[in-house]
This record gives sequence, structure tokens and C-alpha cells, in this order.
Amino acid sequence: MGRKNVVDRVLDLIDERQNPCIVGLDPSMNQIPEHVRMEATDRYSDPFRAAGYALVQFSRSIIDAVAGIVPAVKLQAAFYEQYSSDGVRALLETVEYAKDRGLIVIEDAKKNDIGSTAKAYADGHLGKVEMADGTFLSSLDVDMMTINPYLGSDGIDPFVEVCNRFGKGVFILDKTSNPSSGELQDRLIEGKERIYEAVARRIHELGKDLIGERGYSSIGAVVGATYPDEAVKARRIMPQSIFLVPGYGAQGGEADDLFPCFNDDGYGALVNSSRGIIFAYLREPYLSEFSDKEFHLASRQAALDMRESVVKILKKHGKLPQGW
Amino acid sequence: MGRKNVVDRVLDLIDERQNPCIVGLDPSMNQIPEHVRMEATDRYSDPFRAAGYALVQFSRSIIDAVAGIVPAVKLQAAFYEQYSSDGVRALLETVEYAKDRGLIVIEDAKKNDIGSTAKAYADGHLGKVEMADGTFLSSLDVDMMTINPYLGSDGIDPFVEVCNRFGKGVFILDKTSNPSSGELQDRLIEGKERIYEAVARRIHELGKDLIGERGYSSIGAVVGATYPDEAVKARRIMPQSIFLVPGYGAQGGEADDLFPCFNDDGYGALVNSSRGIIFAYLREPYLSEFSDKEFHLASRQAALDMRESVVKILKKHGKLPQGW
Repeated sequence: MGRKNVVDRVLDLIDERQNPCIVGLDPSMNQIPEHVRMEATDRYSDPFRAAGYALVQFSRSIIDAVAGIVPAVKLQAAFYEQYSSDGVRALLETVEYAKDRGLIVIEDAKKNDIGSTAKAYADGHLGKVEMADGTFLSSLDVDMMTINPYLGSDGIDPFVEVCNRFGKGVFILDKTSNPSSGELQDRLIEGKERIYEAVARRIHELGKDLIGERGYSSIGAVVGATYPDEAVKARRIMPQSIFLVPGYGAQGGEADDLFPCFNDDGYGALVNSSRGIIFAYLREPYLSEFSDKEFHLASRQAALDMRESVVKILKKHGKLPQGW
Repeated sequence: MGRKNVVDRVLDLIDERQNPCIVGLDPSMNQIPEHVRMEATDRYSDPFRAAGYALVQFSRSIIDAVAGIVPAVKLQAAFYEQYSSDGVRALLETVEYAKDRGLIVIEDAKKNDIGSTAKAYADGHLGKVEMADGTFLSSLDVDMMTINPYLGSDGIDPFVEVCNRFGKGVFILDKTSNPSSGELQDRLIEGKERIYEAVARRIHELGKDLIGERGYSSIGAVVGATYPDEAVKARRIMPQSIFLVPGYGAQGGEADDLFPCFNDDGYGALVNSSRGIIFAYLREPYLSEFSDKEFHLASRQAALDMRESVVKILKKHGKLPQGW
């Protein structure tokens, strides 16, 4: 067991809130409630500033609603970044707000590049950046981020180095939740193993030097809730990695499919739901119960309901953490 | 042959400038000349604003220096994005400036995600984005961008759709130039073909519906200059795709290794050099010839020299386009 790492902080929050579920902020503009959008357009005539304002107001409301319930939020960079600099300012403000509310912030940007470019991403998102006067400052400064393995070690090592230096973490895409994920990830290589298994072995190796006090490494993996058989294999190959598990809810993953993502100790997975939580007000049973103006209350209820069903699954499979 | 696409515009500029070489803007702060950085810190006390200003000033100088010589510039998003919203504003200003100077703008961000998130990236970088009032506006609006294939079709189709609709293009990572690119990309799948060959086949298929007047599709591929044997195979599988070819110069790719990236008609490749051009003033023979304040003149000379050596290679291998 090593020194305290970011995953120890995640695990402590999971215990405190008795909840391995997290909320994904994928704020697509056309699903943000009309009163939030109108307040933004009333306040700013510049459409990009108005969009940025709407994103921040919406994100803050969701964060306030779920802050005591979940250990972390996952911010989907695309939905902010599409509004250019105003969107990125909104992303930064949302990161700061979530951290102030005691949440771990995971940025889902699926970055990748090599060498000095990968280092620039790692510096900008997790570490410190060199300013024009030669000093170094934190920039976006999230706790963890998702990265893509297609380029091999050259695209991963610079992130691992920054994680090590600044106490941050990454989730490397392994077996993703989408229907076409198998096109590459399930291909059998040299008759021995599938691509996602090869990536999993690499993730496990990389994590060995970054194990925290509670036995988990800060090099995690993205493993979708929609492929339980593959999750079993991934879990076996990467016992010390935390899985970021998308696909629950809107993408069709069932609660029962989740349990292979957890270790026998009841930890090892962060189960994400995005649209199912943040836009709960648009769907039953919340639609009948909450008005548009109560969208955040609908999200809070959806987050509580998600916790309940995931904890029930853990209990059913004998994987409830000790002391819960 | 189809209707005019973005690659037709690229090819016309290649002919006009008799040059298939492009310049990569990877402006790492510590290599930007001191007088540019000092002007920025004198002007802005906020370190992020100063950094953004330095990036814009540097990028504009390089663009001015090479505008008549190259058909396109490739902007490495990481080096801008690391300065958060100020960096993204600098990126946007650089995109606009390069377009005003008659250059095709390729954004190298190696994006990927699935479904609505991939659409948000495609909208934000290539298409139009929904504002808070329901109207749609262009955001970063580059001509072409790089994307990552690890997630399969779900992560590519939304980009192809936006390309089709807005006359834009993408380069899908296939066989990248870095030393570890083979870890995944060269693995032999089901005893038949390598990963990069499978990706190449997919790129070729996707491009069939997006062929322009000159016979090339707007779905291109990233194929590194450092692996000439793989480039031969990639060229054979994707005869109608333009290759974005990194790795020339700083990454060790030799001019002679480039020719397999070109088709017999003398087209089919955009050869990129980044640090070798934009930071030419730091290296011989330019270091002795140009002062720090003449960094842009060093870049201009390096761009002219690169054109000369690549054209020489084309001539040597009998691949000089007709009429040059």
C-alpha cells in the first residue's frame, strides 16, 4: 500500500455517502429548462456569453442538488467546449464550483496525443502550465480525466507522470459502453487476447507504482455497464483499478449488469449516469412529480433512486462494503 | 466524381503554391521568443491573458510568414487549450486569422466520443451549435480536424455527418508517427490484418460517399512519415483519402520516407512539420542566420526549404503533379 492518492479521496467519499454512483454533466442546450435559457438570453445579448451563463447556472443547480449524495461529478467537456472560450470559462467555473461543494471532479474529454502535446494536455487539465513569464500555474485543475489509448504508451506516460507529481488520476478508455465499441476493442489479436484485454493489462501494469493507502491505483479504466461479460474479464485483469462505468440508464445498461465491475470488497467502480439524472425532469416518473422549475429536485430524486438501486444490487450479490 | 469538397480546396491550394507541405502550430510557451513573451507580460498583468496574447502574436507572425507558401496550417489544440478560456480565445483568433490569410485550417485535437457527445464536438469544431435562444451559430469553425477511432463507428459517424452537411473534413488517426504507435495499431487481428489496416478499410468505406471533384474524399487519415512500409499498405487500402503526414523533421521521418504517402498522381499527402518550422530560429542552419527577433523569417526560410526537399523527393520518384 502506498501514499494517499486521489482514489483514496474518492473511496472516502463513497463511504461517507454510501454511494458509488456519480452524476455526469452532459448539458446539451436543448434539454436545459427554458427558464434557465431565458434568464441567460435576457442577461446577455452576446449568444456565446448567454450560452456560457446558461451552462453555469444549470450546472450549479445540479451540483447543489446532488452534492451531499454523490462522491463525484463527471463533466463532459464537449458540451461546454462547443461554445468556444465562453464555454471553456463555463467549464472552469463549473469545475471550481463542484470542488468547492466537496465533490471530486472528473473531466471526460477522452484526450490523447503524444510527447510534448500529451504533456500540454496533462499540464493544462491536471497539472501546472508555464506562463509567458516562466512561472507555472494551475489551469483547469480537475482531479481526474479520461484519456484514449490508441497511440500507445507515448500518449499515456506523460499523463501518468503528471498524475504522480500532482496527485491526480486518469481513466483510460478500455471497453466502452457504446454499441460499436467492439469494432476495434473486441478484435482478437494474435489469437490470444482481445484489444481491450491488452489495454487492460497495460493499465494494470501502469497502476502498480501508483497504489494508494486503500489499495487502488490512480490509473483507472473506462468499462461500460453494457458489456457485463467483458467487465468480468476486465475486473480480473485490473483488480487494483477503479472503473469508470458509463452506460447505466440512458444507454441501456441494467443495474444487474453492474456487479461484475465491483470487486468483492464492494469497491472498484464509479457508476455514472448523465442524462438520466440531469434531465430527469423530462422523463417519468419525475416528469409528473416535478415542474420544469424544479428540475434540480427531479435530479436530486433521480440520484437518490439510482443510489438505492445500485446499493440493492451490491447487497444482492454480497458486495456491500463493510460498515455500510 | 462528386461535388466540390474541402479537399478540392486543399488540392487547388497545393497546386497554386506547388507545395504539399503544411506548418503545424504547436506553440509551446518556453520556445516562443522572449521579446514576444515580454510584450505580452508588459501588456497584461493577468498571466492567462498574457499567455493568450503571446500565443496569438506568435501564431500570427508565423502565419504571415508562411501564408503564401503553404496550403494549410495545422493547429495543435493542446498548446492553446492549456490556458483555459484565454487559450481557447487565442485558438479562435488564430483560426480566424489563418482563414483570412487564405489558408485551410486543420485543427489537431484528436477528439472522440460517442453519440450526442461526438455530435457536440463535431458541431463545435466543424458545424453549428445551438444557442440558448434556439438559434444555431458557427463556433470554432475549422475546415478539418483530427479524430480518434478507438470507439468505433459511433464515434466517427457524427463527424462524417457534419462534414457532409457543412462541407468540412476529418483525418482519422490510422498509423501514427510515434515510436509506440505499434503497441495497438500494429497488432495482428484474427490472423488476417493489422489494426491500422482495419481502420484504413473503414476510412476508405466511409469516404466513398464524400468524393470531391478531384477524386479525393473528405475523410482523410493520419499516417506517420516514420513508417514507410505501413504507409505503402495504407496508401493501397485508401487510394481516395488524403493523408495527414506527421513526423517529418523533428520526429525523425526522412524526406525519402514520404513518397509512399503520395499517390502516383503526385497528390494524396499533406506533409506536416511543426517545431521544425515554427521554432526554426532555435536550430541550425537558421540559428546562425536569423536573430530571435527574426524568428518568423527563419520559419519562412524553413518552410521554403521543406518545400524544396519534398518536391525534390516527388520528382525523384516520378510523382510530381502534372503542370508543376
